[in-house]
Amino acid sequence: MNAVEAFLKTGTELPCDLTFLIEGEEEVGSKSLGGFLRENANALRCDAIVISDNGLPAIDLPALTYALRGILAVEVILHGPSRDLHSGIFGGSVDNPAMALCQLLAKLRDKHGRIAIPGFYDDVLPLSAYERRQLARLPHDDCKMAKFLGAPELFGEKGFTATERRSARPTIEINGLTSGYQGEGSKTIVPAWARAKLTFRLVPNQRPEKIRAAVLRYLKKLCPPTVRLEVKAGHGGDPYLVSPEGPLAQASMRALKTAFGREPILMREGGSIPIVNDFKKHLGAETLLLGLSLPDDNPHSPNEKFDLACYTNGMRMGACLWPELAAANPPAKPSKRKPGK
Amino acid sequence: MNAVEAFLKTGTELPCDLTFLIEGEEEVGSKSLGGFLRENANALRCDAIVISDNGLPAIDLPALTYALRGILAVEVILHGPSRDLHSGIFGGSVDNPAMALCQLLAKLRDKHGRIAIPGFYDDVLPLSAYERRQLARLPHDDCKMAKFLGAPELFGEKGFTATERRSARPTIEINGLTSGYQGEGSKTIVPAWARAKLTFRLVPNQRPEKIRAAVLRYLKKLCPPTVRLEVKAGHGGDPYLVSPEGPLAQASMRALKTAFGREPILMREGGSIPIVNDFKKHLGAETLLLGLSLPDDNPHSPNEKFDLACYTNGMRMGACLWPELAAANPPAKPSKRKPGK
Repeated sequence: MNAVEAFLKTGTELPCDLTFLIEGEEEVGSKSLGGFLRENANALRCDAIVISDNGLPAIDLPALTYALRGILAVEVILHGPSRDLHSGIFGGSVDNPAMALCQLLAKLRDKHGRIAIPGFYDDVLPLSAYERRQLARLPHDDCKMAKFLGAPELFGEKGFTATERRSARPTIEINGLTSGYQGEGSKTIVPAWARAKLTFRLVPNQRPEKIRAAVLRYLKKLCPPTVRLEVKAGHGGDPYLVSPEGPLAQASMRALKTAFGREPILMREGGSIPIVNDFKKHLGAETLLLGLSLPDDNPHSPNEKFDLACYTNGMRMGACLWPELAAANPPAKPSKRKPGK
Repeated sequence: MNAVEAFLKTGTELPCDLTFLIEGEEEVGSKSLGGFLRENANALRCDAIVISDNGLPAIDLPALTYALRGILAVEVILHGPSRDLHSGIFGGSVDNPAMALCQLLAKLRDKHGRIAIPGFYDDVLPLSAYERRQLARLPHDDCKMAKFLGAPELFGEKGFTATERRSARPTIEINGLTSGYQGEGSKTIVPAWARAKLTFRLVPNQRPEKIRAAVLRYLKKLCPPTVRLEVKAGHGGDPYLVSPEGPLAQASMRALKTAFGREPILMREGGSIPIVNDFKKHLGAETLLLGLSLPDDNPHSPNEKFDLACYTNGMRMGACLWPELAAANPPAKPSKRKPGK
């Protein structure tokens, strides 16, 4: 609230109404917030939401995050024999569910890193030339990133940069594999079953329900008759997008430029912040993700910090944002709050 | 020894020398027996070995097991990033080791159940028409077996019966898969590594060392540069074969026919009995596997049994076998043991 007080001390009237929504459940899934928004939709109605619960690439690179990826979790289990079998006595007579699972999963991604599920890319909104130019401004070096991650080299969908692939393109990941014997040494069995945990990161305008159906259809088509397919549908979350060239985004960019004294960038984040879809659904408002944490802030880790420069620039960002947003979105309703109240 | 006493009570001299070798370590890997054979090779030298530590298909189907499969164990680990990564933040920029492993393993077996490793079948001794006729006499029904195993249907190398595939053809089995998150629900990670435990069942005249080299060569060729391949070589065991049309095997068949009053069959077992290769190596003698346990004997399980009919037929088998073996293999040395001693 400091920024509001500072603003008011200048003697200027607030250019728009502000509602502060303070939530204490974000780290445990925001279970109550959706219902609260639904029940108080009229009182909370607004033109835009501002969240700073994300990051900026560097202190001299202020950024508006205008898109988030959605998610779909799926668990795939292939059942073979009713119990683990002796591979000497029975090996060769029945299919091996672990091999069948590998052969099935192998067909979900081609050698160019592209997801091979029919229809998977149907609803993907292509990146505009403007967006690709913006994303290219993010500091990135393939070799340095591979070294930082400890991977032999980077890899991903052909035709896109690593920045695009990890934030603006959909992905398939095998999060876990489980089958048969996992201890020391060997055990000569044909395992009874094999399981994979998969998550897909989705991008605008993919919808988890539609992708789930496409995945299931393809798995059913691929599954050989020698094993039984079981699919457990996991959680899903919609991707999110605020038009990067729209008035709200452009107003944010101007405010960032004034506050940080630097040309801001537009970026996407590869993770999900599910509550933004609730804001849109219940309040009909777009969310501006104006992150203020730095990449080395160590959130949830020892030595977590928050840079004082981010704090002061963040206050300036708020003060600059209100007139910009007010100009971009002239109020249709009388102001509900008076200066100083 | 009952059979020997019974034999001698008939007043007939033993037609050949007999050495009884009683071992108590078979269930814990027979670690001492190989050394004992090597050290006592001269005293133990003989023309044939008889082991009954295996089975026959039914009480009215006496059988000589003339071949065993060998084995090769290999552990394959693919390393990706140095730690599990957040799939929202980094997913799309690096390869997923679990997916890379699936795609690699998927290429080891084709859709006809044939192992796709170059050179894998080079040394496989083809089944003769006589052997295939013999194996076809084993009681078998695809549907009944699938039901017994609880598998949707049988599967294996095209062009061979299930009996041939599980006893006389080499196989690849994934015995275990491990990667990433294996608990309840989902965890949105790119796992740091993925591991598969593999065993190959080998048939005459494949050699584990040669197959290990072929497997390693192919894995190296298949492994993409986006992950690092680690292969841990596990144990290996040679396959075993006594010529099914040779004098020892045919002598056994005649003895079985007399003892059981039924036409015996020739069969192969898909598992391994590593000690038979030690007998061959140290004593230069072939082993005749004249099994006496029935498929429902529940070895190592509750209600383990041994059928009295197998016991009496087994004694008769021994008594009939000695003259047959003596006739098939006339002694070159003077008898070391006198009747009644």
